[in-house]
Amino acid sequence: MGDLSGLFRPNRVAVVGSTPREGSIGRAITANLLADFDGEVVPVNPNHETVLDRPCVPSIGAAGDVDLAVIVVPASVAVPVLREAGEAGVSNAVVITAGFSEVGEAGADRERELAAVAAEYGMALVGPNSLGIMSTPVGLNATFAPLSPLEGSISMLSQSGAFVTAAVDWATDRGIGFRDVVSLGNEAVLDETDFVEHWGDDPGTDVIVGYVEGIDDGRDFVDRVREVTAETPVVLLKSGRSAAGAAAAASHTGSMAGSDRAYDAGFEQAGVLRADTAEGLFDAAVTLAGEPLPEGSGVGIVTNAGGPGVLASDALAETRLSPATFADETVARLEDVLPDEATLSNPLDVIGDADVPRIQRALEAVLADPNVHAAVVLSAPTAIFTYDELADAVVEAQGDRELPLVTCMMGGDRTESAAARLREAGVPNYFDPARAVHSLDALAAYKEVGEREYGDPMRFDIDESAVRRILDEAAARGDDRVSVDAMAVLEACGVPTPPGALAETPEVAAEVAGRIGGPVAMKIASPDVLHKSDVGGVELGVPAGSAADTFVEMVERVRDRRPDAEIYGVRVEEQVSAEGSVETIVGVTRDPQFGPLLMFGLGGIFVEVFEDVSFRAAPVSEREARAMTEQIDAASMLRGARGREPVDLDAVVEAVGRLSTLALAFPEVRELDVNPLLATPDGVTALDFRLAFDPGDA
Amino acid sequence: MGDLSGLFRPNRVAVVGSTPREGSIGRAITANLLADFDGEVVPVNPNHETVLDRPCVPSIGAAGDVDLAVIVVPASVAVPVLREAGEAGVSNAVVITAGFSEVGEAGADRERELAAVAAEYGMALVGPNSLGIMSTPVGLNATFAPLSPLEGSISMLSQSGAFVTAAVDWATDRGIGFRDVVSLGNEAVLDETDFVEHWGDDPGTDVIVGYVEGIDDGRDFVDRVREVTAETPVVLLKSGRSAAGAAAAASHTGSMAGSDRAYDAGFEQAGVLRADTAEGLFDAAVTLAGEPLPEGSGVGIVTNAGGPGVLASDALAETRLSPATFADETVARLEDVLPDEATLSNPLDVIGDADVPRIQRALEAVLADPNVHAAVVLSAPTAIFTYDELADAVVEAQGDRELPLVTCMMGGDRTESAAARLREAGVPNYFDPARAVHSLDALAAYKEVGEREYGDPMRFDIDESAVRRILDEAAARGDDRVSVDAMAVLEACGVPTPPGALAETPEVAAEVAGRIGGPVAMKIASPDVLHKSDVGGVELGVPAGSAADTFVEMVERVRDRRPDAEIYGVRVEEQVSAEGSVETIVGVTRDPQFGPLLMFGLGGIFVEVFEDVSFRAAPVSEREARAMTEQIDAASMLRGARGREPVDLDAVVEAVGRLSTLALAFPEVRELDVNPLLATPDGVTALDFRLAFDPGDA
Repeated sequence: MGDLSGLFRPNRVAVVGSTPREGSIGRAITANLLADFDGEVVPVNPNHETVLDRPCVPSIGAAGDVDLAVIVVPASVAVPVLREAGEAGVSNAVVITAGFSEVGEAGADRERELAAVAAEYGMALVGPNSLGIMSTPVGLNATFAPLSPLEGSISMLSQSGAFVTAAVDWATDRGIGFRDVVSLGNEAVLDETDFVEHWGDDPGTDVIVGYVEGIDDGRDFVDRVREVTAETPVVLLKSGRSAAGAAAAASHTGSMAGSDRAYDAGFEQAGVLRADTAEGLFDAAVTLAGEPLPEGSGVGIVTNAGGPGVLASDALAETRLSPATFADETVARLEDVLPDEATLSNPLDVIGDADVPRIQRALEAVLADPNVHAAVVLSAPTAIFTYDELADAVVEAQGDRELPLVTCMMGGDRTESAAARLREAGVPNYFDPARAVHSLDALAAYKEVGEREYGDPMRFDIDESAVRRILDEAAARGDDRVSVDAMAVLEACGVPTPPGALAETPEVAAEVAGRIGGPVAMKIASPDVLHKSDVGGVELGVPAGSAADTFVEMVERVRDRRPDAEIYGVRVEEQVSAEGSVETIVGVTRDPQFGPLLMFGLGGIFVEVFEDVSFRAAPVSEREARAMTEQIDAASMLRGARGREPVDLDAVVEAVGRLSTLALAFPEVRELDVNPLLATPDGVTALDFRLAFDPGDA
Repeated sequence: MGDLSGLFRPNRVAVVGSTPREGSIGRAITANLLADFDGEVVPVNPNHETVLDRPCVPSIGAAGDVDLAVIVVPASVAVPVLREAGEAGVSNAVVITAGFSEVGEAGADRERELAAVAAEYGMALVGPNSLGIMSTPVGLNATFAPLSPLEGSISMLSQSGAFVTAAVDWATDRGIGFRDVVSLGNEAVLDETDFVEHWGDDPGTDVIVGYVEGIDDGRDFVDRVREVTAETPVVLLKSGRSAAGAAAAASHTGSMAGSDRAYDAGFEQAGVLRADTAEGLFDAAVTLAGEPLPEGSGVGIVTNAGGPGVLASDALAETRLSPATFADETVARLEDVLPDEATLSNPLDVIGDADVPRIQRALEAVLADPNVHAAVVLSAPTAIFTYDELADAVVEAQGDRELPLVTCMMGGDRTESAAARLREAGVPNYFDPARAVHSLDALAAYKEVGEREYGDPMRFDIDESAVRRILDEAAARGDDRVSVDAMAVLEACGVPTPPGALAETPEVAAEVAGRIGGPVAMKIASPDVLHKSDVGGVELGVPAGSAADTFVEMVERVRDRRPDAEIYGVRVEEQVSAEGSVETIVGVTRDPQFGPLLMFGLGGIFVEVFEDVSFRAAPVSEREARAMTEQIDAASMLRGARGREPVDLDAVVEAVGRLSTLALAFPEVRELDVNPLLATPDGVTALDFRLAFDPGDA
């Protein structure tokens, strides 16, 4: 679905199921449409001659050249009614009717029929179970909500109809307007990605906001939405964060790849800004809709009161922005403007006795400073000026400068008319200095998105047939997991492993150790043992001559402690020195929405205690894989802490790319961990490995 | 200063420096006082007969029996004027006049004189450089701000006059009232602690809030304010957070004990709730002023819309509270109330077509549930009911139940009268579900404070004369630091160290190693070497026979790498096995406001990379020291992760207490680190140690 303008800019709208019955949804929608819509409204109902004084037609076929059908008939007849609309050549429909997939299997069947009819006639369909749609440029309110949004350049989608009514009502009170609004309902046909894509091409939409609870096809969302966010900011409030911890899984990767982290990763990859709260969503939207992007990170703060200035500085420290250092010429200008006792630093305190001309001159000097890329004007109420006067001065000082500016005229009633003046000039006003600063941060965050180069996904040649063989063998012996017995999987992917082999007998162990030479590492090979060293399943520095004995002892020990574990033997390999190395972990899980999800972190306590890991949906570009290594709190360990040599990050990034390639080539791989992937200044080596798969899919 | 009611409940107020001059502060204050004050107002000015139609007297001595003098004369005459007031028997003064310590040394001298006069006459003095004070019960507005606060039970202090004007104005617009308000000014005499203490005894003050930028005597604040917070909640917005990272210091402890962490620690110890933003301050204050405390952590959520319910659940996951599980009898009651398609879980979605009676019955069932200790009612606007009707139903449902309840009637204008009804009933209303939930969390946080038992500070017998001797010796050789050469300091404090001694020659090293027996640990003893192992200054597992050679090699190696380092020899000690142990770090720094500040964390990367440490101002009770060990993110490492035995936490707590005792007994100790303090299931051992002190103070 590309262009959806037929939905939002129809000429003739039919309300199928329109009725004059008081309190009915059909009447509410008809009334809302009749109130302001620029085009024609045709009520459709065989049982009425007129609805709200408009002639009513018995069927949509009799409604003339209709662009949009709003369907509010009982669920039982919704499918035939949609078909009728299709037959009549209607290409856009909003199905308000509830009683589909949200009420169980019978409803879900009906919803599938609805989608099939829409597909058959090539119709753009919103809903079912939708509150409806709105479009202020043509005065369209095709919802049953008691609302009349202001006109604006923010387009909004929502998976909750209630969120639409609440947000539009709240926004109207604050002078915030909308362009197009859609309540997505059950998304039988059109979903959030379709609307984001449509508004991305709409020159009248400056910002896209939304409330979502889930995204069906996460990877599709990432790929299509990142095209949009290159030009148009998208801010989403995604609820269900708290479910993150809930999904218990066997491995470390699994236990932390709660699907909310997948959304965080997917939004990051799509360039979507994620809001944490409803207020944060609109604070960001308003600033992004009305303000230019800052050219740099320097913020100038002008205040008539020290305290609020300090609060703004505090908030700034939590953002991508920082206080600008005023240039010498600015300081010279300020010396002329401000009394001697003023300190000419940033935040600039113009002192409590400042009148409006002093504030305006000071602000002009600050705005002209080459180091200032955004500004905050703070004011406490004084008896010296009114906020209306100050608002005018701020607007005048800004002039036609392309520089984002927000204000904090702190107070109650007295701020209202000033806030309205500022709003008209595109300057948002807040009570709380922290909120003002955070709204500027949304601009900086979006600037980073707009400047991004995504890069091609990394794909490596891997020996798929070798991997296939190993998985088939495991499946043949009834197994759905492999471990160090199958290091060949990693070798087939081109991820370095220490030279070695699986020994199934003490004799082979001795033979492999002898071939390797020096002391070897020996690790129990069992899909049932998660933490090998906890059951005595790891021995390091084993002299070649003791390998056979160690084999026997180790197998006995593990049998003793884990009688149920199936043991395939012992992996015997060259012992790798951990000197100067960092243990990393690279994992893959499969997210129901985003598909294969890559995880990167440092091993051991970093992942176990601090959960200090980063996620991305596969495939990833080199830039994205590198960002994964930079995003973790312990990133400094990789870059060489306390005079140590940095590890070979290129090799880490390549390993992530190779495992990403594996995960995409083998959809049956449920999860895999390389833990540790030892990273050294000279490359990486995989020391342990676990993989679980669905043999049925092989 | 105990009772300050003379300031806030005077009968007769003199305005010294009152004047009819338009635009003057003296006139503004006089006018504000005349507007509403229940008592007498006497303008004082030798140059006028009347001010604003009131008879003006030439001096305060002629003003009659004055309880409170508001002084707004030029700075040059402020001191004599205050003395005159003292002579006249006035016991309370608010000095509005600016031009004291905020303008340099001459002003600071004047401020000291002011304080001396106040002390001489036993006067309670606010300011100088104050906006003034307010007290709504007697209609007192002794400020020059254009404000008239509503009456309420929140008392407020502020180190910023602008914050007072901004906050009072904003609060009035939201129907939030105050009891007493003070702008502290330069705090020549009375400071924030005095007012917190006073309001703690004031039955009319339900909550104390404040804006502070710094607290002069942090330890005094902790000791006095914790007495108050046992009965009355105190919420403070402390600015200057971002300065935290700025203070660079030599050691790990020093580098992280930025003074903002001291405030965090001090507020925690005092039971003060810390707000992050101005909005958060008042959200907490309003809830604490109007709502009972929850008996438990279970929250019931009733909503007519799924989306906002999910947002509330998300926010709940960030708090001390959790969604209640409804009892069986509640579910049975709800079955009768709600339509079949409703899911009877929490959040309870009463479904979008709910009318007010249905919501009220559902809410009554939820409020009666024994597992529900607090409730949130969420609503999106619908055509079925008005928010006024819903507000009445909510208030009726709550009845006289002692259970905190907040609402989110989401929307704009239409919420206003409903919000006012709810406010009257003590129920705060929000747009954003997250803010509603976080305001409930303030109640839960304060409940924890109120239930605390602080316990006596830990004090241990330490051998002070031994410590004194070591510091004196160091000072005598021109040193202000000691290290492993002075492990005797720890021994004198009763902190266990491995048996061993400082060897100044290879021969002594051999002798000490021989005495110890098995392999020993050897560590370079130099105050100039911070990271011993980085310069080859640590050798482990040295056989007794090699100790002399190792001594020579180590000293040579360190000399080679650090030619400037003074070397006192090598510490030779029994080698302690790290098996089953956790490396912790206990440190002390000296905070300019809070005095000795204790730090606890795990050693190595935990402190270096994650800065995962906790702070408390010394002395600490056993409970506080234990809380330090529980507060770090890596606390699970101490409790025994992955089947390991937990360490001896009592021994860790005791070590913290012993170092706290040391720090208090020796004010000249600037900072000290025990790193690592090895914690095992059987106790603790200090393996390394650094201490810096001011020899001049010895």
